[in-house]
Amino acid sequence: MKLKVYADRMSQPSRAVIIFCKVNGIDYEEIRVDISKGQHLTPEFAEINPMKQLPAIVDGRFKLFESHAILIFLACAFPGVADHWYPADVFKRSKIHSVLDWHHSNLRRGPVTYVLNTTLAPLRGLPLNPQAAAEAKKHLSSSLSKIESIWLKGNERFLLGGNQPSIADLSLVCDIMQLEVLDEKDRTRLLGPHKKVQQWIENTRNATQPHFDEVHKILMKVKEKLQNERSKGANDGGGSSTKKLSLSRM
Amino acid sequence: MKLKVYADRMSQPSRAVIIFCKVNGIDYEEIRVDISKGQHLTPEFAEINPMKQLPAIVDGRFKLFESHAILIFLACAFPGVADHWYPADVFKRSKIHSVLDWHHSNLRRGPVTYVLNTTLAPLRGLPLNPQAAAEAKKHLSSSLSKIESIWLKGNERFLLGGNQPSIADLSLVCDIMQLEVLDEKDRTRLLGPHKKVQQWIENTRNATQPHFDEVHKILMKVKEKLQNERSKGANDGGGSSTKKLSLSRM
Repeated sequence: MKLKVYADRMSQPSRAVIIFCKVNGIDYEEIRVDISKGQHLTPEFAEINPMKQLPAIVDGRFKLFESHAILIFLACAFPGVADHWYPADVFKRSKIHSVLDWHHSNLRRGPVTYVLNTTLAPLRGLPLNPQAAAEAKKHLSSSLSKIESIWLKGNERFLLGGNQPSIADLSLVCDIMQLEVLDEKDRTRLLGPHKKVQQWIENTRNATQPHFDEVHKILMKVKEKLQNERSKGANDGGGSSTKKLSLSRM
Repeated sequence: MKLKVYADRMSQPSRAVIIFCKVNGIDYEEIRVDISKGQHLTPEFAEINPMKQLPAIVDGRFKLFESHAILIFLACAFPGVADHWYPADVFKRSKIHSVLDWHHSNLRRGPVTYVLNTTLAPLRGLPLNPQAAAEAKKHLSSSLSKIESIWLKGNERFLLGGNQPSIADLSLVCDIMQLEVLDEKDRTRLLGPHKKVQQWIENTRNATQPHFDEVHKILMKVKEKLQNERSKGANDGGGSSTKKLSLSRM
């Protein structure tokens, strides 16, 4: 039976897992679980992942949640995955674990929370939370600075050196990509000072094309719609009308 | 050259790494980095771990930070570590990664923050933060409930079944142990409803004795001093005098 990937491409760790499968030719079935409709909160989905979060996979009788754990499992259990994604060498592998662990308590607390609380919340019927957005912005700026000064300080192409990405590059870059839906000025203000991060995002994108762009298509669609709404709002004399959009229709 | 472990036993992930080394007979040198004196923030320590956090290790020319990554490295790179700590089987190993990843965004945000903001902050010259404590309490209660209902639901001795602990048991239990320094009534209120969690803590403790108790000794010393201060405060007509204590003197 084919590997099942439960995902919503609006969720950044879902995208990382899907891109990984596509780039590595893993035969899988993608099952969309629409977060904006609360489909991840149903009792049916709790049978797949009792934590009610995305992504999750089912491989035969084996179920697994948490995207980093899934990426590692796929790299180890499926033949044909190139070594650079998750090297067999214990030292290189440990460095990947270290970046991924750091990601949880740092970068991960930035882009998603910031984007939700400045932009996407109304589309999910939630209120915006400026305090949470401010906190998230701090996490984001501090995390991007650390990525630049620690892992990319010698102009490395990828976080752990070398000419090919690892699962750590893919996971972190997919998180940062969430910033695409922001107002362009805001996004530039956040990412602008981090030239090395920008180059690294581009390197990771190039190394995983055409799948990277294809899997991010939904995000770009949301970005475009939000931009149109913003211009319309500006022409109408201001006021956001993002409430009219619905993520589940994209 | 001997493995160097940079740690402060008041830090829960530091304790997990030290207990792991002791239980598995790994020859190491423990270098105390006193968090209460800010020794983790010095330029010298930044050479060891640029993130300025504990624990960190140096093994020859190899440096590593993040406790989960360190535990996995030690389990893989040192001979004689029993398989149950970090099984070679890809399915079992993946389940351990899943628990450890979940830990970062859930349980880890509970005990430490709660204890800091209700009890330890004045000892580090910081103000108490009731709002952060309330948030942390929510994370803690929800995380303990999930551990019980998902991983311990069938009265398992350890998180992933079996009769021996894994690095996931050790990491999570060391976090929960931080609650020991709370006022006894408060601790009972938090842990009381979770009988299975209590039994699992005891199982993990028993499986790692005498090292578990030895490495937690400093925490028990702080607990005792705080209790004495509380009784004294009560006898003096109330009022906390924890400010008189200093963690760095313990």
